[in-house]
Amino acid sequence: MKITAMTAESNAGKKFADIYPHLLGATDVPTLVKNAEVDWDNIDAAFCCLPHATTQEIMKSIPKKVKVVDLSADFRLKDVDMYAKWYGGSHLAPELQKEAVYGLTELNRDAVKAGRLIANPGCYPTSVQLPLVPLLRKKMISHDRITIDAKSGTSGAGRSAKVNILFCEVSEGLNAYGVGSHRHMPEIEQGLSEAAGGQEVVVSFTPHLIPMNRGMMSTIYVDLTAGNTADDLRKELQEFYKNETFVTVMDKGGNPHTRYVRGSNYCFIGVFEDRIKGRAIILSVIDNLVKGASGQALQNMNLILGLPEDMGLQQQPMFP
Amino acid sequence: MKITAMTAESNAGKKFADIYPHLLGATDVPTLVKNAEVDWDNIDAAFCCLPHATTQEIMKSIPKKVKVVDLSADFRLKDVDMYAKWYGGSHLAPELQKEAVYGLTELNRDAVKAGRLIANPGCYPTSVQLPLVPLLRKKMISHDRITIDAKSGTSGAGRSAKVNILFCEVSEGLNAYGVGSHRHMPEIEQGLSEAAGGQEVVVSFTPHLIPMNRGMMSTIYVDLTAGNTADDLRKELQEFYKNETFVTVMDKGGNPHTRYVRGSNYCFIGVFEDRIKGRAIILSVIDNLVKGASGQALQNMNLILGLPEDMGLQQQPMFP
Amino acid sequence: MKITAMTAESNAGKKFADIYPHLLGATDVPTLVKNAEVDWDNIDAAFCCLPHATTQEIMKSIPKKVKVVDLSADFRLKDVDMYAKWYGGSHLAPELQKEAVYGLTELNRDAVKAGRLIANPGCYPTSVQLPLVPLLRKKMISHDRITIDAKSGTSGAGRSAKVNILFCEVSEGLNAYGVGSHRHMPEIEQGLSEAAGGQEVVVSFTPHLIPMNRGMMSTIYVDLTAGNTADDLRKELQEFYKNETFVTVMDKGGNPHTRYVRGSNYCFIGVFEDRIKGRAIILSVIDNLVKGASGQALQNMNLILGLPEDMGLQQQPMFP
Amino acid sequence: MKITAMTAESNAGKKFADIYPHLLGATDVPTLVKNAEVDWDNIDAAFCCLPHATTQEIMKSIPKKVKVVDLSADFRLKDVDMYAKWYGGSHLAPELQKEAVYGLTELNRDAVKAGRLIANPGCYPTSVQLPLVPLLRKKMISHDRITIDAKSGTSGAGRSAKVNILFCEVSEGLNAYGVGSHRHMPEIEQGLSEAAGGQEVVVSFTPHLIPMNRGMMSTIYVDLTAGNTADDLRKELQEFYKNETFVTVMDKGGNPHTRYVRGSNYCFIGVFEDRIKGRAIILSVIDNLVKGASGQALQNMNLILGLPEDMGLQQQPMFP
Repeated sequence: MKITAMTAESNAGKKFADIYPHLLGATDVPTLVKNAEVDWDNIDAAFCCLPHATTQEIMKSIPKKVKVVDLSADFRLKDVDMYAKWYGGSHLAPELQKEAVYGLTELNRDAVKAGRLIANPGCYPTSVQLPLVPLLRKKMISHDRITIDAKSGTSGAGRSAKVNILFCEVSEGLNAYGVGSHRHMPEIEQGLSEAAGGQEVVVSFTPHLIPMNRGMMSTIYVDLTAGNTADDLRKELQEFYKNETFVTVMDKGGNPHTRYVRGSNYCFIGVFEDRIKGRAIILSVIDNLVKGASGQALQNMNLILGLPEDMGLQQQPMFP
Repeated sequence: MKITAMTAESNAGKKFADIYPHLLGATDVPTLVKNAEVDWDNIDAAFCCLPHATTQEIMKSIPKKVKVVDLSADFRLKDVDMYAKWYGGSHLAPELQKEAVYGLTELNRDAVKAGRLIANPGCYPTSVQLPLVPLLRKKMISHDRITIDAKSGTSGAGRSAKVNILFCEVSEGLNAYGVGSHRHMPEIEQGLSEAAGGQEVVVSFTPHLIPMNRGMMSTIYVDLTAGNTADDLRKELQEFYKNETFVTVMDKGGNPHTRYVRGSNYCFIGVFEDRIKGRAIILSVIDNLVKGASGQALQNMNLILGLPEDMGLQQQPMFP
Repeated sequence: MKITAMTAESNAGKKFADIYPHLLGATDVPTLVKNAEVDWDNIDAAFCCLPHATTQEIMKSIPKKVKVVDLSADFRLKDVDMYAKWYGGSHLAPELQKEAVYGLTELNRDAVKAGRLIANPGCYPTSVQLPLVPLLRKKMISHDRITIDAKSGTSGAGRSAKVNILFCEVSEGLNAYGVGSHRHMPEIEQGLSEAAGGQEVVVSFTPHLIPMNRGMMSTIYVDLTAGNTADDLRKELQEFYKNETFVTVMDKGGNPHTRYVRGSNYCFIGVFEDRIKGRAIILSVIDNLVKGASGQALQNMNLILGLPEDMGLQQQPMFP
Repeated sequence: MKITAMTAESNAGKKFADIYPHLLGATDVPTLVKNAEVDWDNIDAAFCCLPHATTQEIMKSIPKKVKVVDLSADFRLKDVDMYAKWYGGSHLAPELQKEAVYGLTELNRDAVKAGRLIANPGCYPTSVQLPLVPLLRKKMISHDRITIDAKSGTSGAGRSAKVNILFCEVSEGLNAYGVGSHRHMPEIEQGLSEAAGGQEVVVSFTPHLIPMNRGMMSTIYVDLTAGNTADDLRKELQEFYKNETFVTVMDKGGNPHTRYVRGSNYCFIGVFEDRIKGRAIILSVIDNLVKGASGQALQNMNLILGLPEDMGLQQQPMFP
């Protein structure tokens, strides 16, 4: 791939390294231009990383010949009423919404390959659906009472100047947030409901802010359906993902740390028996900025352009 | 109180500030001596902070006239068979075990006042029992399916040289540990079972290691008994703790951060409705080294010596 | 002391714990009021913590009978032209400037006791002047070529929402800032010049931002005057501070960590021989928010009110 | 390159991912074997990362046809007496020492290309010599009174279980260490003395431990020789490194953060005027584990094998 244009509004005219100085050494990156200045003639594909609502407007202006992976939340929810409810405004491009393909690559690969507009999943939904969807499809776990206790590094909150994500507010402490009201909830429930054959899934989802830059863990408590054990779940997931490059289901006792995936596109999954009979505990870790965002976006882009799926994603995790 | 003696074995003969240089300014602290060298004649009370098993031996050697607050796990479990099962060896002082009083101060104050040997609770059990015991006693929550997703700062692992708690292993990541096998589990279940009127409580308990020095949060998922709501739980806890200095039950919407209790003896509790009907989410935070260890030890010591309960504990939390 | 009023402008009407929730347990704190609403009749003394320039205006409105410790930079520089040069505007209360006493307690105690308006020192100037002023007064070090390489926790930057102090910008990295242009420089040079008997001192001062909440270290490279050694400097400082509660000069080899002073009003100083002949290295650590700000302010307030100097400041450092 | 063998002693028989679980996804890595079990017949080159002294023994056992990049300190000092003085034992392979080429790539590229045994530089020496050597060669700075105030992330201390690098000892604080006695000093002085045309250079070098995983900054205070300014130094360095991929000399005002190089093989350099006349301040940042260790090792290996110098090193810095 060759980067033909990079856009910004208030920062148009600047070099990318003015905003992200760690990329000063990346000399092949063009100067930022306003979106309106982009010449789409020579462009085959675009990544779109804009605030919600704005995304819908911009997306309507992009020529149909351009393939797009969109990292916003705008095209993830199939039900535009649900979108309006959670995002506080009517959807401005419902016809594009219909076209959009949900880009959880390992679970939706064929549709992604055939798609033009890919809605790249949120970080929490990625970490939750990768382990749960195969199990729900096989009815090995109950669609009821799924409890997700999730933990995320601070980069999940973005880079805008807010007091609550200042270093001194975050360092040396942790807190839950958005208890019962986080916007990733409908996305999670949409995916799990589909996997459960259309039964409405209502999850308990409590995210926590952790004093680290990147990394995400979902600790998931599930009820087993009759006859199944934690070992059965693990085997099923190992079988399901056996040919996948980016999803590793650890052997019995394997305990995924977020450090094991930092800076990489991997998801590591561990499955444990719960002391409460008839339940299992599933641990799923990703780097929220890679498999939870830009890495999966590139994975999807590779697919829609017919390139090797792991191109540009072969970097091993960085430790420490 | 006046510190008459401080003991150590391999470090005997050193100044305390040789080991903890931040106490160089505390000039009224005696040089460390071996336990055998202590003259117990002029000593009214002792704090005991030794490894398990060793504690039992030492405790037998302390004159009965000396009041003791013990910070180890050795006298917390009433059932010595349970002790043997979880700590891998027979209890060496079962008669002392019978005498010991479990020192979760707010829940057991009268017994502590009358006690001679106080078993100071573990950090996780403190954070869990403070919110749950009053609710179980009133049967407002089910004793069944209590799910505790706990998070702790690294100081909970002690100060011994182990690779897994090196800075570079802990910083910038998180992990679960002891899934299904953490030694604080029987202590939690003992307390909750008592509160549930003797019904055997089996909890799901998953602790996580967080990249911060101190602080602990228990995110607890409970089933409500018929007719109760999250608001009812909150009101009950607010009523129960209304005269307590160290337990603050936040108003509706109040979200306890571990930062709010750092360096203090406080416990902050928040109660939320769960999206799964018939359940509530309880957040409980303490400083694992204060209310979860030395602070509660001092609180108990004040009580058994007839001193004001908050003496030496009036320090407000340190932020940031 | 009793807190009669606490002021705020945009936050007037709120409880203090709305802004700093960790103080929810501090029940004796009044609701915030606008400055204009304060009834000064019953007030003996005030702490003033306002932005520069604003401070000068407000200070003029405070009755002369009220003693004030001011934590801003507004009354620290004796030369109002110097103030104008570094702070970009004429001084609005030059007559008050004349009255102000520079509150580096250990170096100026008698003047503080007799003062009404105390200019509380900056954090960097405190960490630098405590070791250097006694040595310059005795001409044991050269006033020339003093090189200060300083490191500070992030709380030194305040609590306003700025991108450069977001968690993800600060964590896992360090950087110098304000190279050659930090506003604490004239304050440092004013103090050192006075100590050098009026000779103009020009220092090299390079502060660095460190990924921690609090703590400050100044690593200072000095030229010895003829006949002096690093050991001589250490002895002189130990003698000078031998009766001081808050300044500890470590014995030979003693290496002050910022952890040794966290949350306390202490300054720890270590003195080392440099490998470059005729030079010494001085390490000086404080908690920038305590001895570098509010702790020293309280120490000064105690003095002007005739209270014991260490009242409210006996808290030992918090570790970890 | 193809990895044919990886060795360990106590860990022989294990998979690499047993020790570094984040490499579980790297499926092309062989199981660890003892050094004695390696079949050198099919091996062209080796990286050697062993403790000092051990390195010398092992190195003697490696066939001469094998090219080696050694990451220990054992072959860095040309003077074996100097080695004995700083490392506390006679050098066991002085003849190999004579053969060894010092691998600071940008400064010694031709010798590296022609070499068989490359002594990969230490992290501090790399960060210091890259900016200073070109300036000393041109006599633009004095070889006298060079003052290096260095700061390093904790990974510089290795991965062995020591109390002083536990998370709780390092987090939320900083300290100097090895003041006047750090083992990287003779390596720095050797390189600078050579650059100064053989004049003996004695530096002041004070390293500090910073609460972060990786990253290193050297803040260097230098005396300018007559007629030179900070701007002249910057221009000279920009000219010297203009064709180098991995060394970026920032434009005037450019302030290198360690974050700008994290996870990459880059060195960023900034040059500032000092307020003390006739001096300049040079800031140099690297990732201590990449350009300061394994990255530069790979860069050297590429050279001795005739491969493109940046092969496997094109990864941009990771932020945050």
